[in-house]
Amino acid sequence: MPHQERIERALRAGLATSLQRGHPPKLAAAMQHAVFPGGARIRPTLTLAVAMACGEDDAGLSEAAAAAIELLHCASLVHDDLPCFDAADTRRGRPSVQRAFGERLAVLAGDALIVAAFEVLACNSKRHLSRLPVLLKTVCRGVGMPMGIVAGQAWECEPQLSLREYQQAKTGSLFASATMAAAAAAGADPGPWRALGDCMGEAFQVADDILDAASDASKIGKPVGRDVALGRPSAVRELGLHGAIRRLNLLVAEAIDSVPVCSGADGLRAVIAMEASRLIPRELADSVL
Amino acid sequence: MPHQERIERALRAGLATSLQRGHPPKLAAAMQHAVFPGGARIRPTLTLAVAMACGEDDAGLSEAAAAAIELLHCASLVHDDLPCFDAADTRRGRPSVQRAFGERLAVLAGDALIVAAFEVLACNSKRHLSRLPVLLKTVCRGVGMPMGIVAGQAWECEPQLSLREYQQAKTGSLFASATMAAAAAAGADPGPWRALGDCMGEAFQVADDILDAASDASKIGKPVGRDVALGRPSAVRELGLHGAIRRLNLLVAEAIDSVPVCSGADGLRAVIAMEASRLIPRELADSVL
Repeated sequence: MPHQERIERALRAGLATSLQRGHPPKLAAAMQHAVFPGGARIRPTLTLAVAMACGEDDAGLSEAAAAAIELLHCASLVHDDLPCFDAADTRRGRPSVQRAFGERLAVLAGDALIVAAFEVLACNSKRHLSRLPVLLKTVCRGVGMPMGIVAGQAWECEPQLSLREYQQAKTGSLFASATMAAAAAAGADPGPWRALGDCMGEAFQVADDILDAASDASKIGKPVGRDVALGRPSAVRELGLHGAIRRLNLLVAEAIDSVPVCSGADGLRAVIAMEASRLIPRELADSVL
Repeated sequence: MPHQERIERALRAGLATSLQRGHPPKLAAAMQHAVFPGGARIRPTLTLAVAMACGEDDAGLSEAAAAAIELLHCASLVHDDLPCFDAADTRRGRPSVQRAFGERLAVLAGDALIVAAFEVLACNSKRHLSRLPVLLKTVCRGVGMPMGIVAGQAWECEPQLSLREYQQAKTGSLFASATMAAAAAAGADPGPWRALGDCMGEAFQVADDILDAASDASKIGKPVGRDVALGRPSAVRELGLHGAIRRLNLLVAEAIDSVPVCSGADGLRAVIAMEASRLIPRELADSVL
């Protein structure tokens, strides 16, 4: 089954609990809105690709890891769009959750998605229980303190920060969790897989900065120019547009080089190259050649 | 070691990760502010008491369960106090997190506390790994969809709700998790422990409604009269003050009766009676006799 199909099925299964008897309908709808239809699903795709490269032997557990990572990503977007952060009215070309459902349901939907992510892992660990603690810790590290997404977001509230550490926490950490959780779900050592996640995360963040500076809102489905408007750190502000594109290309090459020795290394490198090519429009990527 | 001491130690251990190298200082401070000094710690006290009654054989795991429940409770208070919900300036006699640290850090502190709760469980399950999935699921049910705290809060956004279901989700669910997680952590069947949690949760909610209606802010450390001001459902609004006090007394008796057969049933009944006596001032409790 193609990755995309497995991911959507795992996400639907992950949200099924929320739709059980007795649920408050608006919160359930807000959660669905936050998750479907999705964006590029780049993190869970990476998770499944790494799990396969590691010789995946428990499809349910890799899918649970992929779904958990994506649910946490969606949760962070919902809270990011809140009026006190980005106050974004649109996301993926549609009204953001806070815009469509109001601020209160957006706070709650983010919370409920975080919980749902852990529930998915708990419910799919039966066959390889010994892998569950590492899997949980890996996911917690990607999203919580001291250096997960939430920590990254919190650096915006500090008087001083370094661009690299901020981006590493805000974006890189969940990518590192995506690759490391995949290895853990397949029974492999997660450690050697951190570098790939780190590189992909930084590449993705730099690409996001490039799109924010050089794209238009209709193309990426959310407001642009926010980094400058909100005075946020950005690779384009630091390196200029061409400098940022060069950095992106370098990071993708580094990601491909970082793939550890494993049975499916060649296939994985191809997936990375393909995912990377979707990060920014080709004409932008080619503009520095 | 007394329950109180074990709880505070487990909570400090649970937040230790947040203070590791590289953390954003303000978010760490906001999390500490949300958890210390605590309130009555009634939920984790109940967890440890039930674990002991079940013949606790893994102190670290019961303490982890107690800490997880309390961290989730603190997270819900931090989000409850946000401007879009209660807009509370005080909590436990001090500035609320949103007041002391701002709205953004309050959103993030709540998120990070939820993640920390699951991390605590993952990090303390080594000795009895087989108990971890049930423990996780029990905790998820108490806090997430379809009927946990977050769902309870979301019922406030629906045009119609029943007082009982609303309170069951908003308060009862985490109490049920507190008793059921305790049983799971001690290797017992959690099912028979739900009734105790349900009764204690409803008793606590009714007591909260009574305090909101009949107390003054200096005594309970948070704003009073909010239920009426915000048009929220309340046992006092439904039953009158004396009716609500009678209901509270009935629920406590029901809780004591519900204790399943176990080695430490008598000790547990004593703890329940003592915790219940702290719910509302004696003069209020006695006013219906």
